[in-house]
Amino acid sequence: MTIENISVNKSFGGWHKQYTHQSESLNCAMRFAIYLPPQASNGQKVPVLYWLSGLTCTDENFMQKAGVQAIAAELGIAIVAPDTSPRGEDVADDDGYDLGQGAGFYVNATQAPWSRHYQMYDYVVNELPRLIESMFPVSDKRSIAGHSMGGHGALVIAMRNAASYQSVSAFSPISNPVNCPWGKKALTAYLGRDTNNWAEYDASLLMRKATEFVPALVDQGEGDNFLVEQLKPEMLQAAAKASGYPLTLNMHDGYDHSYYFIASFIEQHMRFHASHLRD
Amino acid sequence: MTIENISVNKSFGGWHKQYTHQSESLNCAMRFAIYLPPQASNGQKVPVLYWLSGLTCTDENFMQKAGVQAIAAELGIAIVAPDTSPRGEDVADDDGYDLGQGAGFYVNATQAPWSRHYQMYDYVVNELPRLIESMFPVSDKRSIAGHSMGGHGALVIAMRNAASYQSVSAFSPISNPVNCPWGKKALTAYLGRDTNNWAEYDASLLMRKATEFVPALVDQGEGDNFLVEQLKPEMLQAAAKASGYPLTLNMHDGYDHSYYFIASFIEQHMRFHASHLRD
Repeated sequence: MTIENISVNKSFGGWHKQYTHQSESLNCAMRFAIYLPPQASNGQKVPVLYWLSGLTCTDENFMQKAGVQAIAAELGIAIVAPDTSPRGEDVADDDGYDLGQGAGFYVNATQAPWSRHYQMYDYVVNELPRLIESMFPVSDKRSIAGHSMGGHGALVIAMRNAASYQSVSAFSPISNPVNCPWGKKALTAYLGRDTNNWAEYDASLLMRKATEFVPALVDQGEGDNFLVEQLKPEMLQAAAKASGYPLTLNMHDGYDHSYYFIASFIEQHMRFHASHLRD
Repeated sequence: MTIENISVNKSFGGWHKQYTHQSESLNCAMRFAIYLPPQASNGQKVPVLYWLSGLTCTDENFMQKAGVQAIAAELGIAIVAPDTSPRGEDVADDDGYDLGQGAGFYVNATQAPWSRHYQMYDYVVNELPRLIESMFPVSDKRSIAGHSMGGHGALVIAMRNAASYQSVSAFSPISNPVNCPWGKKALTAYLGRDTNNWAEYDASLLMRKATEFVPALVDQGEGDNFLVEQLKPEMLQAAAKASGYPLTLNMHDGYDHSYYFIASFIEQHMRFHASHLRD
């Protein structure tokens, strides 16, 4: 397992770094970013929050726009942000922004031409944490969070791997992808037309039948253009009610789908994760 | 005077907005961004920090990457970020990133082909504050700050208009442009070869002979690749010592020229400005 450092920036007394590595899950070179808080330079093993970004993003957007480093440095939490899909000239793609490169949806694709590279579920659940925990001064305490497509990914991954995550949070997640245009398009392409195969990638369906719980926090802007057609947090809330899932859903007047919304509430998400990572 | 709103995002209880307007100084359409803290929605007139960005930037970089809104919302300060030059197909440009569009250097150009549009000094000193103070719920208390080329702009503008600004701050400013490659290239193009005409745009030369003082804060990373050849904060410090100028210069081990550096110390700059805007 080798990784190549491609950038370094000091940030709030810690270090933001980008790396590339050859991913076994994805059969291509992948890039990720890590923020190591100052505590990680002082011999401590710090817990990790994995951050999954939304459509069109890379490992850079969250690190540059969310203002997370201030609070990560205070709390002593590392942040790991993978890219949102496999990339490269020989990696299948689509003209739409919502399928293919930049739109991996955190699934293991089973359909051609996607299945060769699009194994983002395995990458995020297995390969990436194994790499991070072997290469950086981090503990094995993990939480996971994300935005939009990445909120979907974080919720699905936490629910299907409840023992591996202390907490999960999402901003504006695609809460019920089997039931919205973005989700139907991506799941059809990556998993095929048999909707029975989609259920294990749907946060609302998983939450409704859950028996193991990961504390969950979701924030959603009421001024978000995608709220009604694509995001459907009410489906997640109904599912939580049915199974008794420990979900807190906060709705926010006037906030939209942008990083300005994420930045406004990232401190609360970090404090939520810190309270569970400390347990 | 008319302005056209082109974007709105709620942020930390306040509003980030972008506008375009026809600039009289620049003879072209200009874009700026404003962050209005929550206090501005509650009938208060809030003071304004003008932020001048560096080479290649627009009105967007600082608003997206510096994490300033959290502290601006707490302190009740509006932020105004203009673009870094005139723009447009009929606006003169250069192939280099350090001259022409995106590189206005906050001067009034006197040389062809630049003089028709490149009047950024007048725009920032006169036209923009007049527009902001007539169109938004702000007071006439102003401070000014910037990064790199914008740090140069902020220091020059504050020193030449000491009565108009309560305080000035800069990250990694081009402190002595008559004496560095970026400055020599831009000042030759915009002002001509007679270096006597450059002195009024050089922060170190202005600070050395200053008799009216604006409290000044400068932060500089020691890991900044441009430090020795382009930035020269030691020239500013020597000038401050000669004139007794109230300058605080902080050097920071390991920090580079990026927004990760700005974000790490923007809270201190905002508290510095707030202490003077309150006077």
